[in-house]
Amino acid sequence: MQIQDKFDQIMAKNNSLVCVGLDSDVGKLPEHLKSSENPQFEFNKAIIDATHDLVCAYKPNSAFYEAFGPKGLEQLKMTCDYIKNTYPEIPIILDAKRADIGNTNEGYVSYAYDYLGVDAITLHPYLGKEAIKPFLERADKAAIILCRTSNPGAGEFQDLISDGQKLYQIVAKKVVNDWNKNNNCFLVVGATYPEELSDVRKMAGDMIFLVPGIGAQGGDVEKTVKAGLNSKKAGMVINSSRGIIFASSGENFAEKAREETVKLRDEINKYR
Amino acid sequence: MQIQDKFDQIMAKNNSLVCVGLDSDVGKLPEHLKSSENPQFEFNKAIIDATHDLVCAYKPNSAFYEAFGPKGLEQLKMTCDYIKNTYPEIPIILDAKRADIGNTNEGYVSYAYDYLGVDAITLHPYLGKEAIKPFLERADKAAIILCRTSNPGAGEFQDLISDGQKLYQIVAKKVVNDWNKNNNCFLVVGATYPEELSDVRKMAGDMIFLVPGIGAQGGDVEKTVKAGLNSKKAGMVINSSRGIIFASSGENFAEKAREETVKLRDEINKYR
Repeated sequence: MQIQDKFDQIMAKNNSLVCVGLDSDVGKLPEHLKSSENPQFEFNKAIIDATHDLVCAYKPNSAFYEAFGPKGLEQLKMTCDYIKNTYPEIPIILDAKRADIGNTNEGYVSYAYDYLGVDAITLHPYLGKEAIKPFLERADKAAIILCRTSNPGAGEFQDLISDGQKLYQIVAKKVVNDWNKNNNCFLVVGATYPEELSDVRKMAGDMIFLVPGIGAQGGDVEKTVKAGLNSKKAGMVINSSRGIIFASSGENFAEKAREETVKLRDEINKYR
Repeated sequence: MQIQDKFDQIMAKNNSLVCVGLDSDVGKLPEHLKSSENPQFEFNKAIIDATHDLVCAYKPNSAFYEAFGPKGLEQLKMTCDYIKNTYPEIPIILDAKRADIGNTNEGYVSYAYDYLGVDAITLHPYLGKEAIKPFLERADKAAIILCRTSNPGAGEFQDLISDGQKLYQIVAKKVVNDWNKNNNCFLVVGATYPEELSDVRKMAGDMIFLVPGIGAQGGDVEKTVKAGLNSKKAGMVINSSRGIIFASSGENFAEKAREETVKLRDEINKYR
């Protein structure tokens, strides 16, 4: 099975393009969990149990775990292990935005694929294909390349025009036409830029996109879905983090997260 | 004291532009250390004790520690603590090549500056200034932006021409003229590209450069030094990792590391 099949299958099974971003910042966790031995893991486990039939992926962001050193990393691993053992059909995306020169990337490959055992990792394109080969060569895992990011200042470099094309368009073309020999490349395209999303879709065939920026960042669901669907009326992993996991800061946080996930799934499906 | 002063002072005190890269890949450590409880830390401690009077910085690469999960992170922290407690005048650069959207970077700021307590971190420019603000705002720490990387495929995007300038030149100009309000930005420019190094020096005044690519990667010392010195005949943190730390795989590894560091320091100083 190719890695995109794992995504396609769960999108079909759960009838969902929603990815829940496990940005489980310790400072924002419900009060009653803060004294627990593994608050990030306990929080994630409750969110996962409450949403597993509504999502196409989970996306923990490494930064929120690294911030707590070894203790955070352990809880990130516990989270990944829990998903793999309990809901093995749901892919895990490690949002780590890595990329170093060739031999050094082996360390990140070990961290993501051997230690955590995730299905995919997000990567910066700036060093080029040659540098990130250790990721591209792992045909069983997805390399998700930053193309057009969701932040307000994304255009500073990504909109620079070279030979008639913007940098993010050049990145998209390279990834689609040259980096994707193992059929394991995805692209990051932010929901906050629907025109660019539509533009990248035209270049990328049915390639899967990771689409952050819905919810707290302000991306519009209708515009995003209409701009980004592929020919199978899917092909988008639409992430929401804070809007789902911090919908309530009380003891009912998991229940509220489920409600928000249902709402987002249904709103997305309305436009598919 | 501004952060570049810490670098300037140790360059002067040790009469050295050499940075030792602590890329302490467990698989490559000397046999007799492998059974130790903290092999990466024991290895680093011996290298640091043997070279502390010959260097201007230490640069652990996070990838080689993350590869071993919490156990690796603990040894990275032990290494940083050891340097700070024993040789507090020597700056520590965390080579982590991070960059996420705004609020997420707070996690990496906590990891690098609060947990590890390093003086500087390397960062990808692709998301723009707005995204990496949490790093730029830490005026007491250096934000080291990737400009021209040392890998063979660096040019894939970095040499793209927009409005008559290459992307790496545009990155350099932005960092020098706009991102450096707190006088805490440095640039990464690889020793494997001396022409580009000379070009970036012309744009950057006396800004400090982190220069990887000497040694195992093939960068030429004479060309590198001549191309990159600033007006104070300094301003370069010239890194060698494998060429120094793995000069011997026997019990004399620290002694051999010292010899290689002396050799590199003296060769660099010949051209200053």
